[in-house]
Amino acid sequence: MTSLDVGRTFKVKEIGTVKNDFKDEIPEDYRNKTSLLKIYPEFEEALLGIEGNSHLAVLCWFDRSDRKVKRVHPFGDESNPLTGVFATRAPVRPNPIAETICELEKREENELYVKGLDAFDNTPVIDIKPYTSNYHVEGVKYPEWVPDKEERRGKR
Amino acid sequence: MTSLDVGRTFKVKEIGTVKNDFKDEIPEDYRNKTSLLKIYPEFEEALLGIEGNSHLAVLCWFDRSDRKVKRVHPFGDESNPLTGVFATRAPVRPNPIAETICELEKREENELYVKGLDAFDNTPVIDIKPYTSNYHVEGVKYPEWVPDKEERRGKR
Repeated sequence: MTSLDVGRTFKVKEIGTVKNDFKDEIPEDYRNKTSLLKIYPEFEEALLGIEGNSHLAVLCWFDRSDRKVKRVHPFGDESNPLTGVFATRAPVRPNPIAETICELEKREENELYVKGLDAFDNTPVIDIKPYTSNYHVEGVKYPEWVPDKEERRGKR
Repeated sequence: MTSLDVGRTFKVKEIGTVKNDFKDEIPEDYRNKTSLLKIYPEFEEALLGIEGNSHLAVLCWFDRSDRKVKRVHPFGDESNPLTGVFATRAPVRPNPIAETICELEKREENELYVKGLDAFDNTPVIDIKPYTSNYHVEGVKYPEWVPDKEERRGKR
């Protein structure tokens, strides 16, 4: 067998859990809604200094997502071209890792209050990283179906 | 047991592999170096349309990272304050998911040539997402130890 015949697998651990009112639907105005990230006590020490950041990249494991889907019409809109999931931010993907930039409103011990998360109640949190604008790239090109920042409000 | 006593686990699958010359060290000028992402043929259809993007967020599983480390001095510099790994982008973290924004130079079937990846040869790729400046946030606050974009060149 060559290395292309077999894929390695790894175990991702839940480091905390999303708590909010989004039971079966993400509200259109989720960007203005606060979610609570309850971090497991064993990981609390990994939060040291996190309150120095105004914005966080919250990585969740979208455990309700279909991992077998390889192509979608972005935003569920059939007028958008059929597109590979690696060329979209669709929640369906082989490893359903979602990343959302959220505002950190406050921290209370192992609880983080974040604004703008688009994840259901009880979704596993698997990583948190500080957001900095150092990662901003100028002059990016992307397909025409990608809405710009203004159009994007309310879309996911 | 309450929900805080136990964490769920999930299986992450390698969707491709990094190929480059970085055997034991990431070169200082990695931002100008090209790596090849060899995507497994079973996931090739998930790449449809990816070449319409100039930049990608490449998610790797840093399989050499120590998952038990909870706090670090950022950039290995002891003059930086001891900081929880969730408040840093250190490669050591409970789930060693690394995200790097790379320029997509070209695609050849299931092979993506990307510039700027800071991952060793043979690192598992676990997800790819298009980068868009839609995720850029203005007016971000972060700790003083975070270098600005100019200072950051060469730092990791």
